[in-house]
This record gives sequence, structure tokens and C-alpha cells, in this order.
Amino acid sequence: MPSKQPVAIVFDTFGSVVDWRSSLIADLTSYVAGRGVTADWAALVDAWRAAYHPSMDRVRKGELPWTRLDDLHRASLDRLVSDFGIQGLSEEDLVHINLGWHRLHPWADAIPGLTRLKSRFIIGPLSNGNVSLLLNMAKFAGIPWDMIFGSDLFGHFKPDPETYLGVARLLDLRPDQVMMAAAHNGDLAAARSCGLQTAFFPRPSEYGPHQKRDYAADQDWDIVATDIQDMASKLGV
Amino acid sequence: MPSKQPVAIVFDTFGSVVDWRSSLIADLTSYVAGRGVTADWAALVDAWRAAYHPSMDRVRKGELPWTRLDDLHRASLDRLVSDFGIQGLSEEDLVHINLGWHRLHPWADAIPGLTRLKSRFIIGPLSNGNVSLLLNMAKFAGIPWDMIFGSDLFGHFKPDPETYLGVARLLDLRPDQVMMAAAHNGDLAAARSCGLQTAFFPRPSEYGPHQKRDYAADQDWDIVATDIQDMASKLGV
Repeated sequence: MPSKQPVAIVFDTFGSVVDWRSSLIADLTSYVAGRGVTADWAALVDAWRAAYHPSMDRVRKGELPWTRLDDLHRASLDRLVSDFGIQGLSEEDLVHINLGWHRLHPWADAIPGLTRLKSRFIIGPLSNGNVSLLLNMAKFAGIPWDMIFGSDLFGHFKPDPETYLGVARLLDLRPDQVMMAAAHNGDLAAARSCGLQTAFFPRPSEYGPHQKRDYAADQDWDIVATDIQDMASKLGV
Repeated sequence: MPSKQPVAIVFDTFGSVVDWRSSLIADLTSYVAGRGVTADWAALVDAWRAAYHPSMDRVRKGELPWTRLDDLHRASLDRLVSDFGIQGLSEEDLVHINLGWHRLHPWADAIPGLTRLKSRFIIGPLSNGNVSLLLNMAKFAGIPWDMIFGSDLFGHFKPDPETYLGVARLLDLRPDQVMMAAAHNGDLAAARSCGLQTAFFPRPSEYGPHQKRDYAADQDWDIVATDIQDMASKLGV
């Protein structure tokens, strides 16, 4: 247990709380079945996620004005559908597929672990997703957040300090009263540099066969756990 | 039941969901008991609430920069403690008393009614309170909000249109997909002028013996109910 308990814990969401890769592949495959549209959907999902950081970097560098993640996702999807030579998807299909990011399933430990943590701490996502994406996901998946910290509240994507410090400001807490929890060392390093407490748990199958990093903690994070249930135990709840 | 169901329902909070007057009088009386500080605490609470709209109007008119409700409450409290000639309160006492607005109790129908509504709709407060106030209140009282729409998300107090339209924007919904629910006709009139759906239920004892208005609906709101449980029934949940 860390020497000082946080008041609030915010969670990275894509990969840390929900399994975006398996969820999107299953969602897409099921949707196109019977529509006569064929493609390597796993490859499409992997390429879609690979476009994620570069698309946010364009906003971070000022090449694009503030743009919600839903709209970055859609622009990437349109490009990939063309690159993959996929034929036969209507505008309605593309809207539905893009909202697949609102229909992601949690890892098995996430809901029980978060429910335990909610009994003592304020819990919320701190994600690059927009509020509507994260809220629709919470309703879809039954994630018991107390508050939704979407990137559109701050007009910034992680790892910009405005996101981590923005949570502390909205909660009227000092940064060290807030803990960032994630399966990504880079997210935690940025949070720590803003003065937040940190908790790590690995998601070694997040990227399926393409996982390259984040198998283990690479700093002495305040908590290192096996998953969110174990994290709750390590915080004594 | 209205002809079209909303996707999200946002609630006025002070007076509509929680009984601020009885809660604050009880909280204050209990806190000062044994501290040897005496005053007419009910009169203080009534005067504190009477300062609420004028203090927000100073922000709305640009006489003050954006100021969180917690800070407006504290400025009003300091003035009233002086006006009432109350002696013997330390800074720690004043901080505690000011946070009494975070420790308000719900009306009896609120939690069961909101729990029912949450099963079908996105629910949240749309209040002049700041996010930390509303979130601490939710944790204290067990209010099952999906998302907290504090006025600090918008930098505006109700009835400024930025608040009602800000909810629709963050939820990526049209205004008519959002319903404003309140015990105050004025709040609903402002919401309706922004295109939101509306639901009214009276709280005839909100102001105790000083209640002067809002005993009944004064327009044909989309829903007129006796309380939040009845509102859930009228929405078919």
C-alpha cells in the first residue's frame, strides 16, 4: 500500500480498462457478416489503432484545431477503408463502425475491481476519448464511474499536462491526491511528472500478437499490480 | 409519457434532488453544538441561500471573473458571519461549514427514482455547483449519476444558455434529445428556450416557511410529476 492514500483514482481506458482490439474485431466481423463486405478486419483494426497516436499528435502540434477523438477515428477509418480497397460500406455503416469505440468490453477484472475501488475513492476515466464516447461505453459495459474526464473537457490529449492537472483542478485536489492508473508506462511517467500518484497493471494481450511493450512496470510506480482487482487489494479495499 | 423519449436527463440539484435547507440547518447545528458558538442558524442558512442568486449575477454581469460556487458561498458566509455578529468560528470551522453544501441529503424519492431512470437514460446533475461539490455530494449521499455537469465545465451559471447547450454538446446530442428536470419553473423555461425537453416536480417545502413560488407547473412542461419516482413512472421505467 502506498504511504499516502489518494482521494481520487483516474484510469486510462483503451487497453487498461477495456479490450479494444478483441472488442472491435468481434463487433466489425459480426456487423459485416451477411452484408457481403469482406476484408481482413483484424488488420483493419490494428491499422486503425496505429493511426491513433499520429492523429492526436497532429492536434498536439497545432496542425489541426481541437478535434474530438470520434472525429479523428472517423477520418482514419475513411482513409483505411480506401487504402484497404473495401467496397460496399454505406455512410450508415461507417457511422456504426466508428461508434464501435463506444461498444468496447472490459477486461474480466475491471468491473469488480472498479466497484471495490468506488467504495472508497472517486473513480473516473482519464482518457483521450471524448465525454460522449466514454459515457456511452460506460452505459454499454456497466462501468461504474463517478465522473467522466474526457479529453474534450480539457481541449488536450494525454500526455499533455493540462489533462492530469485538469482532473486535480476540477476535483479541487492537489495533484498528489490523485492517482493515475494505467497499463502504459508512458502515461504514468507523464502523470508522475505532474505530481500525481501512479498505479500500473499489465495488459500483455492488448495488442494481440503485435504487443511490443508494457509487459512490466519500468519505474517504481506507487502501486504495481497484476490487474484492477489486485490493485484494489493493494489499496486495502 | 412525452411523444419522444430523451436520451439523457439532467437534474437541477439544490432543492430539486437534495433538501439543502434542512440538511444545512442540521449540519450546522450539530457542528456548533459543544463549540459554544450560538446564532440563529436557520436564519443564517436562509440568508446564505438568499445571497446565492445575487452572487452568481455578479459573475453573469461581468462584475466578477468566473468564480466557482464554493468560493461564492464562502464570500457570502464570511459576510453573513460578520452581519450576524457570530463570534468564535475558526478558519477551520468556516471551511467545514462552507463544505456543508457538499453534504446535503436527498429527498426520499430521489435515489430510488434516479436509480430507475439510470437503467434507461444517461443521468447527471446540471447545477450551478462546481464539479467537486456535486461529486462529493454524490459520494456522500449515494446519488448514482453517470456524469457530473458542474457549472465550471462551462464557465457559466444557469440560466445562461451555455449550460444547457453545453450538456448537449458534451453528449453529442441534439438539444431535444436532452431533458432538463427541476422543481423550478424558471430553470425549465430557460432550458426550453434552448430546445431541451422539460420535466417538473414540485418541492413545496424547499424554502421551509419562506416558500413563495414553484408550487405547481406554470407551463405545459413535457412531464409534470409529483416527484422523481413519479417522473420515472411517467417515462415508463
